[in-house]
Amino acid sequence: MSVNLPELASSLASVAKSLHARGWLLGTSGNLSAVVQREPLRLAMSPSGIDKGELTPQQVLTIDEHANVISDHGVKPSDESLLHICIVKQRGAGAVLHTHSVWNTMLSDLFSAEGGVNIQGYEMLKGLQDVRTHEHSEWLPIVKNSQDMQTLADTIALTLEEHKAAHGFLLERHGLYTWGENLAQAKRHIEILEFLLETLGRTLLVKNNRG
Amino acid sequence: MSVNLPELASSLASVAKSLHARGWLLGTSGNLSAVVQREPLRLAMSPSGIDKGELTPQQVLTIDEHANVISDHGVKPSDESLLHICIVKQRGAGAVLHTHSVWNTMLSDLFSAEGGVNIQGYEMLKGLQDVRTHEHSEWLPIVKNSQDMQTLADTIALTLEEHKAAHGFLLERHGLYTWGENLAQAKRHIEILEFLLETLGRTLLVKNNRG
Amino acid sequence: MSVNLPELASSLASVAKSLHARGWLLGTSGNLSAVVQREPLRLAMSPSGIDKGELTPQQVLTIDEHANVISDHGVKPSDESLLHICIVKQRGAGAVLHTHSVWNTMLSDLFSAEGGVNIQGYEMLKGLQDVRTHEHSEWLPIVKNSQDMQTLADTIALTLEEHKAAHGFLLERHGLYTWGENLAQAKRHIEILEFLLETLGRTLLVKNNRG
Amino acid sequence: MSVNLPELASSLASVAKSLHARGWLLGTSGNLSAVVQREPLRLAMSPSGIDKGELTPQQVLTIDEHANVISDHGVKPSDESLLHICIVKQRGAGAVLHTHSVWNTMLSDLFSAEGGVNIQGYEMLKGLQDVRTHEHSEWLPIVKNSQDMQTLADTIALTLEEHKAAHGFLLERHGLYTWGENLAQAKRHIEILEFLLETLGRTLLVKNNRG
Repeated sequence: MSVNLPELASSLASVAKSLHARGWLLGTSGNLSAVVQREPLRLAMSPSGIDKGELTPQQVLTIDEHANVISDHGVKPSDESLLHICIVKQRGAGAVLHTHSVWNTMLSDLFSAEGGVNIQGYEMLKGLQDVRTHEHSEWLPIVKNSQDMQTLADTIALTLEEHKAAHGFLLERHGLYTWGENLAQAKRHIEILEFLLETLGRTLLVKNNRG
Repeated sequence: MSVNLPELASSLASVAKSLHARGWLLGTSGNLSAVVQREPLRLAMSPSGIDKGELTPQQVLTIDEHANVISDHGVKPSDESLLHICIVKQRGAGAVLHTHSVWNTMLSDLFSAEGGVNIQGYEMLKGLQDVRTHEHSEWLPIVKNSQDMQTLADTIALTLEEHKAAHGFLLERHGLYTWGENLAQAKRHIEILEFLLETLGRTLLVKNNRG
Repeated sequence: MSVNLPELASSLASVAKSLHARGWLLGTSGNLSAVVQREPLRLAMSPSGIDKGELTPQQVLTIDEHANVISDHGVKPSDESLLHICIVKQRGAGAVLHTHSVWNTMLSDLFSAEGGVNIQGYEMLKGLQDVRTHEHSEWLPIVKNSQDMQTLADTIALTLEEHKAAHGFLLERHGLYTWGENLAQAKRHIEILEFLLETLGRTLLVKNNRG
Repeated sequence: MSVNLPELASSLASVAKSLHARGWLLGTSGNLSAVVQREPLRLAMSPSGIDKGELTPQQVLTIDEHANVISDHGVKPSDESLLHICIVKQRGAGAVLHTHSVWNTMLSDLFSAEGGVNIQGYEMLKGLQDVRTHEHSEWLPIVKNSQDMQTLADTIALTLEEHKAAHGFLLERHGLYTWGENLAQAKRHIEILEFLLETLGRTLLVKNNRG
């Protein structure tokens, strides 16, 4: 598999702009990647510290499987590149998206004791790849946050191994990761999961209030 | 009745973009249709699995009354085409819109035991066709969700028969359907009903809290 | 006072688009006007039943002091033109804006028994004309809704007479009216009042919950 | 340090438009500044009473360290220019942003008795300059609001002195101030702090409700 890099970089910039507009990538947070080629691995990756509403295709980096920058840029890749590489390898993903929304941050906090968020019975679940019915039950594991990226990548590798059916996971008080076979599918997944987390969060409020 | 297809497809794409921007068609969810001609029925329909924020007029399909694709496209029509056809026939609608918003999903869940949502006393109700006063009482029936589209179409046919005055209905934990004589009216109805459901949902919260 | 009509119509369309984007004029609701000349009164007015996100300057009507259309259009002016005329005359306003937002609808309902909403202590109050300090106390009267426009106009005339300092008023479960010396000021007022009503509504929720 | 004024003015206008779109500068509220040169101090400043969604680079003023207008404009600088100058001097900031959002207004009210808002344990905190871990604890002091700008500037000078690590502060029932080495960093900080305040505010609600 090999794709056109300028086109991919342009799509990454366009998705970044769209997610930033929704408030899911504020303050240069979050990051996006897409596989350019598998062997050896080349990943198009959003750079660190850039306003995602202003990301240009030219700023997109290419990294290898150790998160070393291949392309000749002055900027450095996201600190969380190792997590993207881990997901690409373990899930065979073609694209990975990581957002910081108010609702994913809140639910990763509110459900941390349970170790994950269970989402079931919603039609929107069918937007997740290979889910055929709203009766599906999606478990989004919550991983404890850490600043040691290698440790975090190892924990995520184990989590993905343990929860083979999961379409994403939450980092506690940090954000949401999801992925797809390609960027369009990953974007679909991020919109679906953000929608479901907001719905769950708001429903908690109303249900408790109705007592 | 016969309309200009390219113009209609362009209007469908424009409405899709607008509703996607509001977060009512996230993750390729929801669908839109408009009648091209009545006899035999030709319906312009949004395709399955397309990002509604990126829908182009060229991607809009034409289907017949059995939801078979007439136009020569590589894509397939929405799974829910049968529901659109059912509404077009039973209500004489010229356009049908189906959205998945956070608030319509929540209220279809919170009021499922009641079998519907009652909305009354709001000026915004006058945005629904033939409603002349805010004293109107609108009953939005809630239909149980199903993955069997023929069964669901049959249930909806009965529901529409039973609730002749309803301007829309909810599918439980799934979404909202509404329609209009033409696309402009259907868009007006979707904006009105989404507004009213959000208002009702938020009011529940505040009223209960004020005790 | 006499202004350039095409320029004014273009500004009205631009304000309409902006307020529709914020969800304050959904489903063709709400209306906008601006004075073209005082003697005899000529008011540029948004037409009835038009999507405010799509309003063109050409669609803006000119009406006289009895809400008769002067300009030669196929469309009719908003049903609420009489209310605009009443405000223009009684307050000497140069522009009037009427929005239907979720929060103004909710607060006009939740505080109807009190007869108005009291807003005080917020810096944002200084955005209201002639308010110099956050210690200002703004009383937004709530008027009972009615479909009889002449009766409603009469009630509003009395309300404006009684509450001479008010910068706006609410119609119960209907919406918000505000005005300004010109369109820019009226737009400032609508943004200020919508902000304050949302802040008040959300604060009610949190305060009660912290109880 | 000296920067290109037209470019800076253009960036200020672009940031203003973006923050206005998010509803953080409604009704001509809030203000923005960036340092043009340090000795003598020249500050590019948003004018008073202008719709921030429509701000043009040409409307941006240049002021000196006493908030006197240097550039030859018909408009006056924001009343809060003295606060910007105070922050620029005391923190060595290259840009200052002041927003009025619903959530910053609410939290400055709800936590006023505590004298500040404590935010800790969120990954998003790393978006604040020199914060390396989510375990960081950020204290946003709340300063009592006043219409006497010199008094307010003096209080803020003391507050900044007392809370040397703070990346921003709240004015009670008024708004948020933050800054950065340059405009990009200040924009990053405003997005980070607005995100965290909204997250904190919504979490208060859900946590209390879950009891």
